[in-house]
Amino acid sequence: MSDTAQPVMENRDYKTFNPPDRLLLGPGPSPVEKRVLEAMSRPLVGHLDPIFLQCMDDIQELLRYTFETRNRVTIPISGTGSAGMEAALVNVIEPDDEVVVCINGVFGERMLDIVSRAGGKPIAVRAEWGHAIDPNKIEDALKSSSARAVCLVHAETSTGVLQNLAGISDMAHSRDALLVVDAVTSLGGHSVGVDRNGIDVCYSGTQKCLGAPPGLAPVTFSERAIERVRNRRTKVQSWYLDITMVERYWGGERTYHHTAPISMNYALREALLIVHEEGLESRWHRHEMNHRALVEGIEAMGLRMFVAPRERLWSLNAVAVPEGIDDARVRARLLEEDNIEIGGGLGPLRGRIFRIGLMGSGSSSENVSRVLDALRRALD
Amino acid sequence: MSDTAQPVMENRDYKTFNPPDRLLLGPGPSPVEKRVLEAMSRPLVGHLDPIFLQCMDDIQELLRYTFETRNRVTIPISGTGSAGMEAALVNVIEPDDEVVVCINGVFGERMLDIVSRAGGKPIAVRAEWGHAIDPNKIEDALKSSSARAVCLVHAETSTGVLQNLAGISDMAHSRDALLVVDAVTSLGGHSVGVDRNGIDVCYSGTQKCLGAPPGLAPVTFSERAIERVRNRRTKVQSWYLDITMVERYWGGERTYHHTAPISMNYALREALLIVHEEGLESRWHRHEMNHRALVEGIEAMGLRMFVAPRERLWSLNAVAVPEGIDDARVRARLLEEDNIEIGGGLGPLRGRIFRIGLMGSGSSSENVSRVLDALRRALD
Repeated sequence: MSDTAQPVMENRDYKTFNPPDRLLLGPGPSPVEKRVLEAMSRPLVGHLDPIFLQCMDDIQELLRYTFETRNRVTIPISGTGSAGMEAALVNVIEPDDEVVVCINGVFGERMLDIVSRAGGKPIAVRAEWGHAIDPNKIEDALKSSSARAVCLVHAETSTGVLQNLAGISDMAHSRDALLVVDAVTSLGGHSVGVDRNGIDVCYSGTQKCLGAPPGLAPVTFSERAIERVRNRRTKVQSWYLDITMVERYWGGERTYHHTAPISMNYALREALLIVHEEGLESRWHRHEMNHRALVEGIEAMGLRMFVAPRERLWSLNAVAVPEGIDDARVRARLLEEDNIEIGGGLGPLRGRIFRIGLMGSGSSSENVSRVLDALRRALD
Repeated sequence: MSDTAQPVMENRDYKTFNPPDRLLLGPGPSPVEKRVLEAMSRPLVGHLDPIFLQCMDDIQELLRYTFETRNRVTIPISGTGSAGMEAALVNVIEPDDEVVVCINGVFGERMLDIVSRAGGKPIAVRAEWGHAIDPNKIEDALKSSSARAVCLVHAETSTGVLQNLAGISDMAHSRDALLVVDAVTSLGGHSVGVDRNGIDVCYSGTQKCLGAPPGLAPVTFSERAIERVRNRRTKVQSWYLDITMVERYWGGERTYHHTAPISMNYALREALLIVHEEGLESRWHRHEMNHRALVEGIEAMGLRMFVAPRERLWSLNAVAVPEGIDDARVRARLLEEDNIEIGGGLGPLRGRIFRIGLMGSGSSSENVSRVLDALRRALD
């Protein structure tokens, strides 16, 4: 026991925090529109207030629209995108379950770690970082195992790779395996098509193409997935993320589980409203067009995209760092001189790529010009 | 697979959400001051931006002040108070560990559930709801077991009971057990005295006496607790809540773990600034004085407090529902006619108590008068 009976640190003079106005073109968080920030600053109501229950209903409906699904269980988890990943996995995986985990970047590795912590037996299917996963390898892994789930990253934020989802659910479902998909960096920027692609569990974050601040993780569970959770032999290892309890609060019963993050839900509702007003197809198209403009500008500067054309995300653009350039210095210059944040590479790609996010309201032709200009000056 | 290839629900006309101005005097969330709401609506910066790292340092220092601790690992978990509870428990408990869990309300029961899900062997020490735990029973449980931790709720939000913490840590530490304390409804309203009381792991929520919106869970781990985590035989079951990884982001290394909820951290920093400006002792005193005024008013109306005087929380006041009164109707009337939220009882106390929160900025003499007046009219 310490002898500190008195409060520590009483005399420092703190000031209110005034962050600068950064242009957020990194791997997230993405820019948040004024409307969303304003929504977040509205007065709080209780988490069981009838007025808030209506807000929750709206969010669920707007999330179904955005995920392109009719799944009943479609809600925001009260944590960031990574909590969404954990919620997706720990609910459907039981100890000793074999699980095919596809890995071509940081987030596939994270799935593997979480599957292991849940007591699952991961079967890794790998591709080189910067490349998509070969579906034939997934099929091979399914054939040579009794895997109960396939985990796949739709949009690998660490590399800028988009995964084609076509046909994967058929492979999985024909062997009674669930398809779990990470759509953190695609939802709202690319079509995720949860129902069309037969995805059983899909999760995302609020801070990428949805344009709300980080803090919530939209998830959706198919009836097949919910059935799997209901038939578990063991309790879900996480009380906080147990979807059967969370859905009793979000669904018809309104049973208190935990105090919902009220203000963050206000923000998410407003951000989803903006998605709905723009319309999904227009929004995807905007993300595609600005991505194309960025690529053109990058190549016109003599730089090279890190990912092959057919596998590129529109929301997260990986640009190869030219030989002899110190990427950290370039990024620091953009931040300090132009107030623009872009990201660097992680793990094996450290120092090898810039990651330029064009997500949500950040995906605009003006921002494409601004980041290209700044990059040109910084590389000069 | 569903046949929904098209987005669902395209034609509904949504409006921006305009919540009413409720006076939040329930079990939480508590009222949030304008300064805090404004802080939350400031422009976002990245979670690795040097400016944000300074914000994180301020939060840690202000949290140490508020918890009355010198613990290095003192940070907000990116989830609500219940995520704080889960983080506290899953980090220090390993499969087959015996754990003494004290239960005199909903939150003790929740601890028991989480300990079990973490593979621990809970040893329940119970008191009737509305009463504090008898320390002799804790000692007996420690003597007749090899318990590695004692879990105790300092402020039972479901009953309004304050637990005296004196002497418990000596009992626990003399048998090499850690003391884990729930301070969700006390931190900032009562002295928690983490170092003085020898608490090893303590957690709270932002939405009670701290006066920020729900969404983050301040936690603090003693070096003894961190040592326990470091010496685990198994990985912490939760990746998201693994304190050794979370602290590498919050501590000196700044290793990316998950994207911090930027805006919520702005809010927490501003709320803690208010705590610091007022000073802890003044703040505790204010909570005590307004609690006393409420009790006087309640008893003057001929109503009865549910908890004995020496065991009453200042932040959460349980009032016995008078014979023959429908508590739900009374609460609905307060909400609809006076825009005041108060809480009802949970579990065995359903229909038997009103829960009146006087937390954070909600603890004021004006609010005491308002809720007493409204209650008088509603019971008339």
